[in-house]
Amino acid sequence: MTVELISVGTEILLGNIVNTNAAYLSEKCAQLGLSCFYQSVVGDNEERLGETIRTALTRADIIILSGGLGPTEDDLTKETAAQILGRALYSDEHTKARIQEYFEKRKIVIAENNWKQAMIPEGAIIVDNENGTAPGVIMEQEGKHVILLPGPPNELIPMFEKDIIPYLQKFTSGIIVSKTVKICGIGESTVATMVKDMIKKQDNPTIAPYAKTGEVHLRVTAKAESEKEARRLIKPVVKELKERFGNDIYTTEDDVTLEKSVVDLLKANHLTAVTAESCTGGMLAARLINVPGVSDVFKTGFITYANKAKRRTLGVKKSSLDRYGAVSEKVAQEMAKGAAMITKADVTVAITGIAGPDGGTKEKPVGLVYISCNVCGKITTKEYHFSGSRNKIRELTTANALTLMRQCILKYYSEVTFGK
Amino acid sequence: MTVELISVGTEILLGNIVNTNAAYLSEKCAQLGLSCFYQSVVGDNEERLGETIRTALTRADIIILSGGLGPTEDDLTKETAAQILGRALYSDEHTKARIQEYFEKRKIVIAENNWKQAMIPEGAIIVDNENGTAPGVIMEQEGKHVILLPGPPNELIPMFEKDIIPYLQKFTSGIIVSKTVKICGIGESTVATMVKDMIKKQDNPTIAPYAKTGEVHLRVTAKAESEKEARRLIKPVVKELKERFGNDIYTTEDDVTLEKSVVDLLKANHLTAVTAESCTGGMLAARLINVPGVSDVFKTGFITYANKAKRRTLGVKKSSLDRYGAVSEKVAQEMAKGAAMITKADVTVAITGIAGPDGGTKEKPVGLVYISCNVCGKITTKEYHFSGSRNKIRELTTANALTLMRQCILKYYSEVTFGK
Repeated sequence: MTVELISVGTEILLGNIVNTNAAYLSEKCAQLGLSCFYQSVVGDNEERLGETIRTALTRADIIILSGGLGPTEDDLTKETAAQILGRALYSDEHTKARIQEYFEKRKIVIAENNWKQAMIPEGAIIVDNENGTAPGVIMEQEGKHVILLPGPPNELIPMFEKDIIPYLQKFTSGIIVSKTVKICGIGESTVATMVKDMIKKQDNPTIAPYAKTGEVHLRVTAKAESEKEARRLIKPVVKELKERFGNDIYTTEDDVTLEKSVVDLLKANHLTAVTAESCTGGMLAARLINVPGVSDVFKTGFITYANKAKRRTLGVKKSSLDRYGAVSEKVAQEMAKGAAMITKADVTVAITGIAGPDGGTKEKPVGLVYISCNVCGKITTKEYHFSGSRNKIRELTTANALTLMRQCILKYYSEVTFGK
Repeated sequence: MTVELISVGTEILLGNIVNTNAAYLSEKCAQLGLSCFYQSVVGDNEERLGETIRTALTRADIIILSGGLGPTEDDLTKETAAQILGRALYSDEHTKARIQEYFEKRKIVIAENNWKQAMIPEGAIIVDNENGTAPGVIMEQEGKHVILLPGPPNELIPMFEKDIIPYLQKFTSGIIVSKTVKICGIGESTVATMVKDMIKKQDNPTIAPYAKTGEVHLRVTAKAESEKEARRLIKPVVKELKERFGNDIYTTEDDVTLEKSVVDLLKANHLTAVTAESCTGGMLAARLINVPGVSDVFKTGFITYANKAKRRTLGVKKSSLDRYGAVSEKVAQEMAKGAAMITKADVTVAITGIAGPDGGTKEKPVGLVYISCNVCGKITTKEYHFSGSRNKIRELTTANALTLMRQCILKYYSEVTFGK
């Protein structure tokens, strides 16, 4: 079965917003085993929208439209799709009640035009919207399936996950299951080289690499008659990847981020951590603190941007700053040691670098970064050379600091959460 | 003149990457006064790509294709477009020399298939690529303009800015000039209400609101015969907006972010700033440090996530934590005061809040945040109620902390950078 995506909205055509819905829906459809050959974006214009829907009906089995289900006169996705399929609209009591309830809960007076959202094409399947007032609509006709979804991602995504995926699964012969193997500490091209033979001979499961900032993800996808069978196909491939990449794999779970893997590792080994940041200025701490429940292992962090702060707060020696400069292996080490001395934390990580765009020299160019990780008195310091904008360099630094934390903890502690 | 965008790439259809090129190109075309009615995405497939180009040729004057100009056999945008326009390809010596130079500079051996990128459709305009090996190509035929651009944004964007914009400007009757009025501290719906009358009667210039995290931008766009004339049209509208929003406008410059406006304000008033963060865990400091040259005004920051860290690092009283709780007006104030006492900074900002998803109670729900800003001993503390994910709440908190810093500095210092 083939699927075609139509995003409706003048704000996308004007470049006011990035079309993240299309990326989300494409990825989900690919995972479901539906082939997507075309995506379109069209404005809230009856004629052009109609033309786009008609074209899609000639070449796809399933057409997913998103956006244009709002209460204003501009919103005409439902009206246009219904007209093309020759269906009249009726006022649906169930949807009316849901809209009323939605507004009453929020103590907002309903505007008259909101009732437009309760108008449903005859014979359509209504998909309740748990996060807004526009219901989803599915119309089936002559073997074609036209699915209308609300545009806001916080309405579209939950609706798609809860109701549309089960609906679409009926049309895929067999079940698609994916597992993502997440790798840190190795570059994209090295990862690609290390799995080149596997990708070349792949069939079912397939392996697809995705480059992330400071990480590489390998998605292993299998198609089978049952979920159990798909998982059985995936297992040896993931095992092979684990053998090839070892501890550089930080997780095979979808909901585990690199920072969560570090926090889990700290928790499993009953360790506390402290950050001391210069050029990243809090980005590392901010990522760690994005993990719910981090308070067990992370209590405090320092941002020491100025030399004086490095000296006063962390006890970095004036002589080290003078002799080696703020961006040096020596100063990174002293920052990590100082943070450990003051806080008595088990793991301390220090970052100093030149994020640019100014401040680089021939000897110390923009992108030069030192990260030092102290685990119970054992210090590892690494030199990095990153490129990109100021923010890109800082993001790469932060991801590599998390990777170094992980590597150092694994080196000295046996409680590995690997593959958890 | 109308423009149509075609993004070529299987990776977009599979949802591996978000189509940011389309958003970028749409915005630029809108600014140029070109109307974009359709965008499409199609894979590296000759038949489907051909069909998409043919359809676009029937309905648009200018067709911009991006992607599919790489050296592999899969890449066939140039070959397909040339074939549709009935043009043979020839090996271009100038482009060959540029490709050779590109590889020699990087000390990489040229693979045989790279020469494919030097093949140019007969009679086409060649657009040199300063950041890669695939040149841009422009073909003009029967009043239509087909523009081929490389897919990687770091190649596409510089090429578009340098060569494609001047090329497209020839086709727009008159010049389009925009000015963005950036507002903080007022919600989107309030801003919309405050400019409703202006938007209703707008013609030239137009006013378009854009909601950002903790900010609202109003873009004022005018079309005229000359840039001078366009700027003359924009001026009274921006003046009217300045009268309505006053100091809540933090800038009217494109390259000034909220954090930069705060850093500029600190610099103009010769003030230093220090952050003390709990739930945001470094996000506020990280945003400030994203401003190049921040070192004049920002020296250090504290992340005090645990109560003990709040006490030990900032001198928050145990009795205050026990009596009012860590998330309270009192503790926020003591954090800000403590940071000022230790560092002698002129401006200190403290943040404490419940970012969730756990930790909320009936009295103190998830999303409750206190931000305290001390300017030379004068303390302002505000209570906020945010909603969304853990990360969303933290991002909203950070933006509002920057806004509060700005408001407090403006209250006590006269050196306003407003409208700078």
